[in-house]
Amino acid sequence: MENKNITLASFKSLLVLITFTMTLFAFGKASAQNKDLIVRVAKLQIDSAQLDSYNAALKEHAETAVRVEPGVITLYAVAEKENPTHIMVFEIYANAAAYQAHLQAPHFKKYKEVTKNMVKSLQLVETDPIVLAAKPKL
Amino acid sequence: MENKNITLASFKSLLVLITFTMTLFAFGKASAQNKDLIVRVAKLQIDSAQLDSYNAALKEHAETAVRVEPGVITLYAVAEKENPTHIMVFEIYANAAAYQAHLQAPHFKKYKEVTKNMVKSLQLVETDPIVLAAKPKL
Repeated sequence: MENKNITLASFKSLLVLITFTMTLFAFGKASAQNKDLIVRVAKLQIDSAQLDSYNAALKEHAETAVRVEPGVITLYAVAEKENPTHIMVFEIYANAAAYQAHLQAPHFKKYKEVTKNMVKSLQLVETDPIVLAAKPKL
Repeated sequence: MENKNITLASFKSLLVLITFTMTLFAFGKASAQNKDLIVRVAKLQIDSAQLDSYNAALKEHAETAVRVEPGVITLYAVAEKENPTHIMVFEIYANAAAYQAHLQAPHFKKYKEVTKNMVKSLQLVETDPIVLAAKPKL
């Protein structure tokens, strides 16, 4: 019975400690990130004959980058309903170093190579965030 | 010793069960939401003499809407670095009903009233998401 109580108490203490540490880490990370964030919007026009292929490549690239790169926070790509070849990508990187690392990542180089003849125009708009409000989970 | 082993095994089972349940819940929620999502981009031009006031009103509005409205998922507002009076807002709502509710919310009506003489032009671009990839926490 003594063993059981010690074990229960130890597990509870451990859980509290883990929760506390994760909370501290999450807050520290969020505040450190916000002042260094790189936020920009890419505006693209895609060859209509290759739109499905382009969208598939973009989807694969965005999901991979957010999954494997610690500094790629958000890649939201949308097509205008009235003209689906007009695409906007809303991009958030943790900091300048994360953005530079992204440009060197193998999946980014592959995406650029695969899509180079599909993209008719590309405009990169550098921005300053005014407010980035979002629920914790989409 | 037997008690201790039982306790350890119980905790481990509980942790596995909690993780499994949370994963199922997260996937269910995400897939239910994604097919109904309303995603659009607002493009605004603001009177330069009133830009600070406008940005403050927009920030307060976006933070309030995401905090108090269950169906307002994301309001990301950014200003073009080269022309800070040109603002884009990337908006995600859970579904059409959530968007309609947002238009009737008191904080939205207040924002529209307060900013009506600050906004020189407003274009709403309806979009279809191609990919919405993001880390769980900004």
